[in-house]
Amino acid sequence: MAAEATDRANSDRTGEPLAILAAGGQVPLQVAAAARAAGRDVLIIGLEGEAGEEIKAFPHAMAKWGQIGRVEELIRAHGAREVVVIGSVSRRPDFSSMAVDLGTLRYLPRLIRGMLGGDDTILANFARFAEERGYRIVGAHEVAPDLVAKAGPVAGRAPSGGALADARLALAAARTIGLIDVGQAAVAVNGRVVALEAAEGTDAMLDRVETLRANGRVTWSGRAGVLAKRSKPQQDLRLDMPAIGPRTVEAMARVGLAGIAIEAGRVMIAERGETVALANRTGTFIFAVDGGPGAA
Amino acid sequence: MAAEATDRANSDRTGEPLAILAAGGQVPLQVAAAARAAGRDVLIIGLEGEAGEEIKAFPHAMAKWGQIGRVEELIRAHGAREVVVIGSVSRRPDFSSMAVDLGTLRYLPRLIRGMLGGDDTILANFARFAEERGYRIVGAHEVAPDLVAKAGPVAGRAPSGGALADARLALAAARTIGLIDVGQAAVAVNGRVVALEAAEGTDAMLDRVETLRANGRVTWSGRAGVLAKRSKPQQDLRLDMPAIGPRTVEAMARVGLAGIAIEAGRVMIAERGETVALANRTGTFIFAVDGGPGAA
Repeated sequence: MAAEATDRANSDRTGEPLAILAAGGQVPLQVAAAARAAGRDVLIIGLEGEAGEEIKAFPHAMAKWGQIGRVEELIRAHGAREVVVIGSVSRRPDFSSMAVDLGTLRYLPRLIRGMLGGDDTILANFARFAEERGYRIVGAHEVAPDLVAKAGPVAGRAPSGGALADARLALAAARTIGLIDVGQAAVAVNGRVVALEAAEGTDAMLDRVETLRANGRVTWSGRAGVLAKRSKPQQDLRLDMPAIGPRTVEAMARVGLAGIAIEAGRVMIAERGETVALANRTGTFIFAVDGGPGAA
Repeated sequence: MAAEATDRANSDRTGEPLAILAAGGQVPLQVAAAARAAGRDVLIIGLEGEAGEEIKAFPHAMAKWGQIGRVEELIRAHGAREVVVIGSVSRRPDFSSMAVDLGTLRYLPRLIRGMLGGDDTILANFARFAEERGYRIVGAHEVAPDLVAKAGPVAGRAPSGGALADARLALAAARTIGLIDVGQAAVAVNGRVVALEAAEGTDAMLDRVETLRANGRVTWSGRAGVLAKRSKPQQDLRLDMPAIGPRTVEAMARVGLAGIAIEAGRVMIAERGETVALANRTGTFIFAVDGGPGAA
């Protein structure tokens, strides 16, 4: 469904300008490349302190946290009606280091409310703000459908036996904590959920599982257990989609987990070529399962 | 309710022998002292590698992990029909370091099944084994009612405003992960759940929150946020009751959390005098709320 929507969005929009509000990582560049391949005129607006040098490969500009007026001006000058908000943010904005411009000042009370809430709220408020002003927020996966997986094996064989049971258990746990808007990932090993993700994020959770194994609080031999990652059922995927990437795969071999179970269409695979190659090389499976908001 | 049951149990059982199968910490001694005060004849059976030297203050014997035959023999020789299983276990049993005796060999297949399951299963299997052989497993809080709290403030003032909201949020999150049999504790700060406990345990979770704050992933000023700890709704409190103690309170001040919310009657307060005094001295509230298996 995501792929269909994308093909339609891209084919309908050849030549139409697209603005990409980019934080860190490689994914903004994948989106920019996919949009350019579809004949669109791309502007990347890089978030200072987050976006990397690589955005210079595309027409680009920089903005600071809080410079909403500047961002809107750049989007308008580019002639874009559609905006993709994408990339990893290493830390939550801090008002003391925030560059406040006129556009921000006008909307500050609402943004402050947003920033005091969960992560979802910050982005949801930005989207509402943009849409009230006539822009359309587009999901990165709508522009670059390869960012997400179809149901089935992505790397290695489909899990079976104990690994399949752990995948189901971890996916169910991740769904449970997603429903209460806390986290998107969980680890199950030999029939037991050993870690639930909250504010620490997936990488730190995997480091924790490594520590639990090293200090003997959780024991298993060889490679066993599954990291599950999925969207929150109520998540706005245009704004915030969970992701796996090479670093996630690297952790699987290091921690001794057998593989990764993700939700088809609703979890991003960053740097897909490298991620899949690394998984195959290190004997780690990546498996995508159907299971949208309504599924168990 | 727990207190009533205990008073009845104690007054009915003056002079009746009690066996205490004791792992680590001070709680087994509190139980032994309460039972002795009620006129009962106590034997502490200390788990080697876990039980401390302090058990020598009472009639005692030692046993190793897996020496079920020896444990049963000691209980029988003491003339006890009632057994309390209590204390903290620093690591899960490892078959390679386990002393296996005849009683163990006979029941090994079932125990192995138990040990491959969650923590609850190990203890539940032990209880079933003991009860099949005619013993009655008694909750530590039934013998020593001071181990648990009645609803209301335990230390400091009852939380209000933001702290009350965080207490409710963290208690609800802890209940959610308890329902899926994963953990018993959660931390919420300023309206956001920032940590969920799984195999790492509460102390490690609190260390994580400290790190999250130190590295700026979660920010707040002064003391804010609440640790919630509760029983799993389906938990057998005779075998395994979550606990807080001086170390938990010490972590509150160190991490910068405002206080602790626990379930009345269903969470143990270890070393209560010291725990409450430390909380009062460090400006940390401890508050107990009603909310048994059926409550939200």
